[in-house]
Amino acid sequence: MPDEPLVIRDPAAMTAASRAARARGQRVGLVPTMGALHAGHLSLVDYARANSDLLVVSVFVNPMQFNNQGDLDNYPVTWEADFALCAQHRVDVIYAPTVDAMYPEGFQSKVLVEGLTQEMEGEFRPGHFDGVTTVVLKLFAAVRPDMAAFGQKDYQQLKVVERMSQDLDLGVKVIGRPTVREPDGLALSSRNVHLSPDERQRALCLRRALDQARELAAGGETEVAAIEAAAGEVIAQTEGARLDYLAVVHPDSLERLQRLQGPSRMCLAVWLGDTRLIDNDALN
Amino acid sequence: MPDEPLVIRDPAAMTAASRAARARGQRVGLVPTMGALHAGHLSLVDYARANSDLLVVSVFVNPMQFNNQGDLDNYPVTWEADFALCAQHRVDVIYAPTVDAMYPEGFQSKVLVEGLTQEMEGEFRPGHFDGVTTVVLKLFAAVRPDMAAFGQKDYQQLKVVERMSQDLDLGVKVIGRPTVREPDGLALSSRNVHLSPDERQRALCLRRALDQARELAAGGETEVAAIEAAAGEVIAQTEGARLDYLAVVHPDSLERLQRLQGPSRMCLAVWLGDTRLIDNDALN
Repeated sequence: MPDEPLVIRDPAAMTAASRAARARGQRVGLVPTMGALHAGHLSLVDYARANSDLLVVSVFVNPMQFNNQGDLDNYPVTWEADFALCAQHRVDVIYAPTVDAMYPEGFQSKVLVEGLTQEMEGEFRPGHFDGVTTVVLKLFAAVRPDMAAFGQKDYQQLKVVERMSQDLDLGVKVIGRPTVREPDGLALSSRNVHLSPDERQRALCLRRALDQARELAAGGETEVAAIEAAAGEVIAQTEGARLDYLAVVHPDSLERLQRLQGPSRMCLAVWLGDTRLIDNDALN
Repeated sequence: MPDEPLVIRDPAAMTAASRAARARGQRVGLVPTMGALHAGHLSLVDYARANSDLLVVSVFVNPMQFNNQGDLDNYPVTWEADFALCAQHRVDVIYAPTVDAMYPEGFQSKVLVEGLTQEMEGEFRPGHFDGVTTVVLKLFAAVRPDMAAFGQKDYQQLKVVERMSQDLDLGVKVIGRPTVREPDGLALSSRNVHLSPDERQRALCLRRALDQARELAAGGETEVAAIEAAAGEVIAQTEGARLDYLAVVHPDSLERLQRLQGPSRMCLAVWLGDTRLIDNDALN
């Protein structure tokens, strides 16, 4: 039976623990989460476990990154299960600050990344990325990790955090890890619990749209307009599914592509009832 | 003869040097400057020397905080003198990154503080504080100091940096140190070299305006409008002096006051020809 994780709720105490570990010559790894841990998170935890000595998982449902109050209110909270999973996966520290500790009275600072956040999630969730970059900066500042692992499921977020870490000299190696999926292809997401059985079935349209695009690309189609139209048609043909966006972009700059030449990535966001899902995949 | 300071130009190398010092149990102190060092900077250096083991002085003329290209182009650069002064004052490391290292192609991140930056310098120098907070965040991230010393001459900047450090969990103790003045009362500033002999004489109007306000306050005047009018009259009566702003504010929130009750601070900015000077003092 491994030791239970230490729970730290105060930023200064977190920094002190990280410094003490580094003074012992240990590498510090961080997996930032909003709790409601699933196998996608755990793959990040296992990766970070194998690549660091002091492994910190942060659990903080960040109000600043929710552009929709209902989404925040409904976000699943499963603290006891999260704690047990962290213990099983040999997490050393759960950093779980309170909202008051993170955003005390008078808080007025913001970290933002400008270009990469303009399209896709940035267009449909105004203010979302400012909340993400601000909280991730705070987590990096308190935890001072050598490495932090993020899922590729939130692909734009991954690229934004990479850019922030590089631009601001944070010295954190940002690692993107593959999306973990259900056997039928649905990307794991804490929001999947909100899907009705019908919606759960229809949610496969995201994966099917990506597969449709990949097949066309593999068959030699290079016109992005044709690929986006065919993938969009998969969503349009799914009852009760509503598309926010579907875009083929450069995997680093996230700029919209016209033709497939070098590497590319398709990203999409789809509503199923009141639940919004995102997914993405490389096309070549 | 003390050892010469080590000059570091790369953010990652700076972080490595700081980490090595901390691993030896040393406290790291930082004095951020734009070079052109004068006795005001040196008082910060001496304070930080006495309160840290590894003393870092950063020298970086930050283009992002200049809202006026002419001001940037004319900003004095005195590297050899700065180096000699740092050696005399037992600085361990001069952190002097290049503009390309700080803002490489594709840079797109920004750190900002919202409320405290709206008035005074923020109103008259649009974008200035975003440049300050972004570069100071980068300096703090690369140097990872325990303590950083700033002059009270740039009073609003000091308060903005304090707020940023606290809000973003940076763990840096931000210290404000008293303004150093010429014998006749002019606050030391790297921009003073641009004053003609006539302007240099007239520049005393800032100190005289502050003294006028302090005298009124000491005599029992509590109406801020009366104090601001009297101090403004000192500037108005000075040939060739042009006021940007003059404000009596709360020393922490920087909100404009109507009456002197608790603590207060008067801040002002005045043009003399093409040179813009700022100053401030406590009124009670």
